[in-house]
Amino acid sequence: MRALVYQNNELRFTRDHSVPTKPKYNEALIRVTHAGICGTDLEITKGYMGFQGVPGHEFVGIVESCGEERFVGKRVVGEINVGCGVCPSCLNRRRNHCPNRSVLGILNKDGAFAEQLTLSNKNLHLVPDLVTDEEAVFVEPLAAAFEITQQIPLRPTDKVCVMGDGRLGLLVSQVLALTGCNLVAAGRYEEKLAIVKERGIDTTCNPDFPQNEFDVVVDCSGSAAGFDLARKWVKPRGTIVLKTTVAEREAVDLNSLVIDEVTVVGSRCGPFAPALRALAMKSVDVRPLIEKTFPLEEGVEAFHYASQKGALKVLLRI
Amino acid sequence: MRALVYQNNELRFTRDHSVPTKPKYNEALIRVTHAGICGTDLEITKGYMGFQGVPGHEFVGIVESCGEERFVGKRVVGEINVGCGVCPSCLNRRRNHCPNRSVLGILNKDGAFAEQLTLSNKNLHLVPDLVTDEEAVFVEPLAAAFEITQQIPLRPTDKVCVMGDGRLGLLVSQVLALTGCNLVAAGRYEEKLAIVKERGIDTTCNPDFPQNEFDVVVDCSGSAAGFDLARKWVKPRGTIVLKTTVAEREAVDLNSLVIDEVTVVGSRCGPFAPALRALAMKSVDVRPLIEKTFPLEEGVEAFHYASQKGALKVLLRI
Repeated sequence: MRALVYQNNELRFTRDHSVPTKPKYNEALIRVTHAGICGTDLEITKGYMGFQGVPGHEFVGIVESCGEERFVGKRVVGEINVGCGVCPSCLNRRRNHCPNRSVLGILNKDGAFAEQLTLSNKNLHLVPDLVTDEEAVFVEPLAAAFEITQQIPLRPTDKVCVMGDGRLGLLVSQVLALTGCNLVAAGRYEEKLAIVKERGIDTTCNPDFPQNEFDVVVDCSGSAAGFDLARKWVKPRGTIVLKTTVAEREAVDLNSLVIDEVTVVGSRCGPFAPALRALAMKSVDVRPLIEKTFPLEEGVEAFHYASQKGALKVLLRI
Repeated sequence: MRALVYQNNELRFTRDHSVPTKPKYNEALIRVTHAGICGTDLEITKGYMGFQGVPGHEFVGIVESCGEERFVGKRVVGEINVGCGVCPSCLNRRRNHCPNRSVLGILNKDGAFAEQLTLSNKNLHLVPDLVTDEEAVFVEPLAAAFEITQQIPLRPTDKVCVMGDGRLGLLVSQVLALTGCNLVAAGRYEEKLAIVKERGIDTTCNPDFPQNEFDVVVDCSGSAAGFDLARKWVKPRGTIVLKTTVAEREAVDLNSLVIDEVTVVGSRCGPFAPALRALAMKSVDVRPLIEKTFPLEEGVEAFHYASQKGALKVLLRI
């Protein structure tokens, strides 16, 4: 089948990738229709996780075969962490943290930049008719934004800063603003911030906030300097949410966290159901985040395009 | 009056310290009967906070005069942070975090190692008859232990590790164990851990726990290496509570906090009322933590004694 494959430090398009093996009883075989390129995919082509195979974890597709009848022939999106099903994490409904997990297109499992993939039935979610294919591709990162309100209570009177105007930052701003909180999205590019500004969200390219300004600061900056800025801007007893990973180990002033009783929350993958509801309700608009759509055949070019500074979401039509 | 004074890098006892100025309407004049020497006091004699004057913030005393009649002649303990009363922190009942606060015996306010002190009425708590003077001195650090359950929900099925068998660690272990949680107190000295072991709490001097063992790890180690150990031992989605301050800035693996969605909570001063209730109920026993009691006149010697490695609580009888 057609696929993008990353192997021996090279990403290439092929028409001869072997189709996924016949799925097990608890798995579905899915024909991918659209997929999105994410920062993690770009990292993978630099060696992240040592992944070899078909990358891609943001997708929408049609179920071709599946042990659960209700999915067959239907449009689905899929959670990306596949737990072992028997460890304490899995049994406590935390399969995202299963120590033996595989992760679609990231860890020990071929992903979505191919005609077909297999995925556990447990990971599937039906896509409502009100949501287009292009929108459905955003469910995975949008779920990661909803993970924040899943983890911490956000009050409508809270002052909140979202740092970063990348793909994730713009989704997080939209999701958190739904709580009614007093939010400002801080970034570098006026044209990118305009996407959320048009929805009535305060934005700034010159974030010279005073110290102790915010109840909650969400770091989607993807930069190593993000934490220190967040620490400066958050109030005593406030919360810093870490949403992006940075490569280096940072010198962090743990003392100041104690004295000001600051809480730091690491946040990763999130719940799909609220993300699908938000897309169906149009309470979040992901369409302006689409930068360009390429056919799978031009996938290597699409990766180059997505890796340009300031690029928003690049989609692949499979 | 008699007092211990820290000035020009020297701690000395004097009989000639000026008595506190006549208190304002909202303040009480208190005759101190007992006070405790805490790690912060020892740090102050090394230059911490640049404090000059009378140190001491753990105390019990009798109110000599006060605008509020109900306190006069009564035994009280006192919260140590004195807020300005008009800033947003103070108005939101967070005067512990008032940016203009003074702190008894720590910041811009003479403390408890003297015959008399003044303190805002708002900071006072009556001591129940069931609580002795010696026990009441522990209310301030015991309140700091209760701050943990004030900040994070602790479930009776949680696996919890308290790192550190110092004064604070032994109080924290006792308080957290009251929740019924599955707790182990990890430390270096068997004879110190015996204090909580006798109360039925699991202890260990050889904490070779597997990775991802605990839902909550509380770092009372007072050591810079504490955070990395806590990170290793806490489960994905677990919580690390930072209870002690360490001088250096540490290199912290922020990435791993995101991937495992770990929460880090800084924790400082706590609520006095539950600490007083626990002492009255004898649900926490602080008496075995008393190492030795010195008269105020021997305060300098008492400081030397308290600074010995492994020393527990040293009290001053005023």
